[in-house]
Amino acid sequence: MKGAIVGAGAVGMAIAYSMLIQNTFDELVLVDIDRRKVEGEVMDLVHGIPFVEPSVVRAGTLADCGGVDVVVITAGARQREGESRLSLVQRNVEIFRGLIGEIMEHCPNAILLVVSNPVDVMTYVAMKLAGLPPSRVIGSGTVLDTARFRYLLAERLRVDPRSLHAYIIGEHGDSEVPVWSRANVAGAFLSEIEPAVGTPDDPAKMFEVFEHVKNAAYEIIERKGATSWAIGLATTQIARAITRNQNRVLPVSVLMSGLHGIEEVCLAYPAVLNRQGIDRLVKFSLSPAEEEQLQRSARVMRQTLDEIQF
Amino acid sequence: MKGAIVGAGAVGMAIAYSMLIQNTFDELVLVDIDRRKVEGEVMDLVHGIPFVEPSVVRAGTLADCGGVDVVVITAGARQREGESRLSLVQRNVEIFRGLIGEIMEHCPNAILLVVSNPVDVMTYVAMKLAGLPPSRVIGSGTVLDTARFRYLLAERLRVDPRSLHAYIIGEHGDSEVPVWSRANVAGAFLSEIEPAVGTPDDPAKMFEVFEHVKNAAYEIIERKGATSWAIGLATTQIARAITRNQNRVLPVSVLMSGLHGIEEVCLAYPAVLNRQGIDRLVKFSLSPAEEEQLQRSARVMRQTLDEIQF
Amino acid sequence: MKGAIVGAGAVGMAIAYSMLIQNTFDELVLVDIDRRKVEGEVMDLVHGIPFVEPSVVRAGTLADCGGVDVVVITAGARQREGESRLSLVQRNVEIFRGLIGEIMEHCPNAILLVVSNPVDVMTYVAMKLAGLPPSRVIGSGTVLDTARFRYLLAERLRVDPRSLHAYIIGEHGDSEVPVWSRANVAGAFLSEIEPAVGTPDDPAKMFEVFEHVKNAAYEIIERKGATSWAIGLATTQIARAITRNQNRVLPVSVLMSGLHGIEEVCLAYPAVLNRQGIDRLVKFSLSPAEEEQLQRSARVMRQTLDEIQF
Amino acid sequence: MKGAIVGAGAVGMAIAYSMLIQNTFDELVLVDIDRRKVEGEVMDLVHGIPFVEPSVVRAGTLADCGGVDVVVITAGARQREGESRLSLVQRNVEIFRGLIGEIMEHCPNAILLVVSNPVDVMTYVAMKLAGLPPSRVIGSGTVLDTARFRYLLAERLRVDPRSLHAYIIGEHGDSEVPVWSRANVAGAFLSEIEPAVGTPDDPAKMFEVFEHVKNAAYEIIERKGATSWAIGLATTQIARAITRNQNRVLPVSVLMSGLHGIEEVCLAYPAVLNRQGIDRLVKFSLSPAEEEQLQRSARVMRQTLDEIQF
Repeated sequence: MKGAIVGAGAVGMAIAYSMLIQNTFDELVLVDIDRRKVEGEVMDLVHGIPFVEPSVVRAGTLADCGGVDVVVITAGARQREGESRLSLVQRNVEIFRGLIGEIMEHCPNAILLVVSNPVDVMTYVAMKLAGLPPSRVIGSGTVLDTARFRYLLAERLRVDPRSLHAYIIGEHGDSEVPVWSRANVAGAFLSEIEPAVGTPDDPAKMFEVFEHVKNAAYEIIERKGATSWAIGLATTQIARAITRNQNRVLPVSVLMSGLHGIEEVCLAYPAVLNRQGIDRLVKFSLSPAEEEQLQRSARVMRQTLDEIQF
Repeated sequence: MKGAIVGAGAVGMAIAYSMLIQNTFDELVLVDIDRRKVEGEVMDLVHGIPFVEPSVVRAGTLADCGGVDVVVITAGARQREGESRLSLVQRNVEIFRGLIGEIMEHCPNAILLVVSNPVDVMTYVAMKLAGLPPSRVIGSGTVLDTARFRYLLAERLRVDPRSLHAYIIGEHGDSEVPVWSRANVAGAFLSEIEPAVGTPDDPAKMFEVFEHVKNAAYEIIERKGATSWAIGLATTQIARAITRNQNRVLPVSVLMSGLHGIEEVCLAYPAVLNRQGIDRLVKFSLSPAEEEQLQRSARVMRQTLDEIQF
Repeated sequence: MKGAIVGAGAVGMAIAYSMLIQNTFDELVLVDIDRRKVEGEVMDLVHGIPFVEPSVVRAGTLADCGGVDVVVITAGARQREGESRLSLVQRNVEIFRGLIGEIMEHCPNAILLVVSNPVDVMTYVAMKLAGLPPSRVIGSGTVLDTARFRYLLAERLRVDPRSLHAYIIGEHGDSEVPVWSRANVAGAFLSEIEPAVGTPDDPAKMFEVFEHVKNAAYEIIERKGATSWAIGLATTQIARAITRNQNRVLPVSVLMSGLHGIEEVCLAYPAVLNRQGIDRLVKFSLSPAEEEQLQRSARVMRQTLDEIQF
Repeated sequence: MKGAIVGAGAVGMAIAYSMLIQNTFDELVLVDIDRRKVEGEVMDLVHGIPFVEPSVVRAGTLADCGGVDVVVITAGARQREGESRLSLVQRNVEIFRGLIGEIMEHCPNAILLVVSNPVDVMTYVAMKLAGLPPSRVIGSGTVLDTARFRYLLAERLRVDPRSLHAYIIGEHGDSEVPVWSRANVAGAFLSEIEPAVGTPDDPAKMFEVFEHVKNAAYEIIERKGATSWAIGLATTQIARAITRNQNRVLPVSVLMSGLHGIEEVCLAYPAVLNRQGIDRLVKFSLSPAEEEQLQRSARVMRQTLDEIQF
């Protein structure tokens, strides 16, 4: 399988490094508008190949991406001093306009895996610009937020994160929704033990865990300027689910078409991923409060989409 | 970490091979009453070491097991023509009488991981003979049955087995209990979609999956004489959960002390495993039918224990 | 990538188990004339899939092998009481006659990886029967003998086998040739430290190591009836070198065409393996004694080929 | 096994990320004078734990490093505008003075793995300051340069880097020495095919490969500001060789005591690494030109050591 990463910033490079170590693609092409930087990054990666299972890594342009199976997009603008969030989004849309067209020209059969933020907006925009069916345009969604939620809950409950099942869905951002009603350790629901779990009435204050999740990106950015490592690992897992045809369920950003009354926005929702891209969504029944939160998240998303032009 | 496998038959060797490939122990000692056979097996294993992450594998006796952290016990008698199941169990108890004493002498600080069948009986017997606290004597329980259940359900539902959560608990044997009430794909319960799931009324006939699970060992034995590969992988995972201090939840055979009204038998139940052995059980609430089945499984177990002498 | 294993005996199953654990193929088909046994083996394998990176494993016939990239052949006759070695070889040739024809019919584009013994003879026979170019018919050769040589030398020298480079070439059998003149630890030749290394005059008696290698199969068979684990790991590495296009050098059995004056026999010789099969041989210069031994090995091989009919 | 990384800059974090993915330590402590930054880095790492084999990662101080087995040191000063190389080294020595003392106080039994540059100088300084035996203070040496050499040679020769054996020894820097006389593919020497290999007379101009290696760091720094990924993978391999007791041979920086007439400087030379640290050096015989180059490298090193104070 052949992959490409478009955008070789901190996120793109954490993805590339993780993918190289975990032997995710037979061949990986790194693309960046800063050709010299990406050349340096690739030199730095390939010198490590004698220490891992060998694969091919190259710096290139989209013209080198013929035959690519998955294009990971991390490219995007940086927020300017005093710039509004909306203006930033609009600038990212402009970047995507050129990018997606070029991707469609050189690798029309690839699945697009959008990591650029705001990821749900950019996934929707990419889908529209590409004219691809929704199954072939996937956003990284809340795969990372869900991992944070599991890690922190697992730490509180002193259990292997792999035995702790819980999801964050909706917007990858402030309106995201922790699905407390479904959170469970090996099938034992937290809400059975404490019905108020996740609410301010919970004596164990589990809601603090979600507060941490929601603030995690801010706290990390404040400390180190950006997040990179965990999104690198999350994106690797999404790519593997696709290329290895795993039918794995991950809360990626997908086009909603009617589920929970939500339509025509991309939001994170548990989906089955395989070589076709998104095979189907795994329908959850949510608590009334959770469903309302998800719909609110959808409205937030819709509003942004209405305000931008593409 | 140092491990020992006692019993180098088909099961013991599938465990050893899997553990070697997955770099589970720094050092692994294989013990068998047939010294020459185990020497041959170890020669055959170590010649493959240049192809994996290196570790030490040796043939030895229990006297070579000083400092071992986990002793995997697969030793046991073979059923004789016309022998009753009870007579077989009693003979296994006799084997354990010598074995456990010797293990306690040479590696008193090891955790015992019992794989010999009938595993729940032998786990209980090992615990009593060793005089160890229940947290340090662990049976392989229904970790394998649960894997079979997940694999077959996952195949039906076309989903990665890692995204399908379901347990088989109780006796590793005919009275085992599929916990249909908790079976879920990524948190979405099968019983929400089809309340009759697992019952004869289920139009999708999911109960067939459990029938396959329950008959799996018989069907495999009929075809190839024994089961080995899957129990090898299951046991490797249990050992890793222990040695790597993972707090992973696995349905191992443990001493029940009051949960669901069951006491003084070993049965498979989801438990948190770490370097201390069994850290705690993860309490499930079961449907009334499931709870009754589990209690029946406990009575079956109790009856066997009453009939044997140790 | 899709693979098939033809022959589900001890060797075929050790290969299949190792390949499953090491995620070697996306899809693996197991074929055996004993349909029920191979069904049982596959059931036993797939129940372990929840514990590894998921892939597809199926029992089938050669008719299910369309699109297979590598066919591993372990099928062969067992020696009958009092049967001559030559008669056994002839019977294996008969088995291959049917088998290779059927493989060519159903997967004409596959690379053949022959493990059946005597492997050099069977590789040559398979090549002729298949009418494939020499690059696409590969025998497991002395990959295993070389691993044994490295493991045992590495143990003597107390060094990681991965840092010890040495080859056994020629026939996988009694006439095989240890290339002492090239044996080195990280580039430091054993022959520089002790010019007599490998000869009876070596005071450190390193030649004993090769004696062990040559007798290893006999010693293991005497103790456990067959060898399986190490050849399973060796074959997995050969298959990965092919499917992952690694250009890795391994001493596989290949058609010799002039090197060291040897022609028209298959013998083990270091070869570069990639997705095309055998890319090229890596020419060694040998000591005069080694070259003579290799030519003797070739004559032994030629004689057997002259005595059988195919 | 427990590890610590002192210095959470680009190099320290690439090491940490690689070690997390490759499950190198059960517990890893990250230490940096910028406490907030290292907290952010650790948050970013641990959120990815649900995607890998679980382990513990913490931000801390050296006071949290009790029981650590290996301390990886990447801390060091940045070159100031117009600062001489010697002045920079002297400032690094001052940093080490405090650091090594503190490490010795809190984890006196740890092995020190020095990555800070100039690595050979800092390894020597660390050894003297710590008062540890030479076997317990290891510099990353030319493990990375050797990987670059192998990767680039392997690319030229179209062979798996794991089948290409060649070393760069001496100073990790301008005076480093490519050991052309020993470079080989699977035991076949490049110098047998082309005696002039590595010299200006070589028609295939293989010496260009070494030019690339020597300039690699400059070229990468010029393009991306620093090198990080490959040194991260190299350091992970050194640490694994130690913690897993592999006896692996790697060209680490070690105290030379007489070999090739060199004494009382640290230089990179192939060494056997295991849980004791450096077990022994693997003596190479070098060509006269190579030996002279190595001695020159030693004199360069000696001169720097004479010019600094510690």
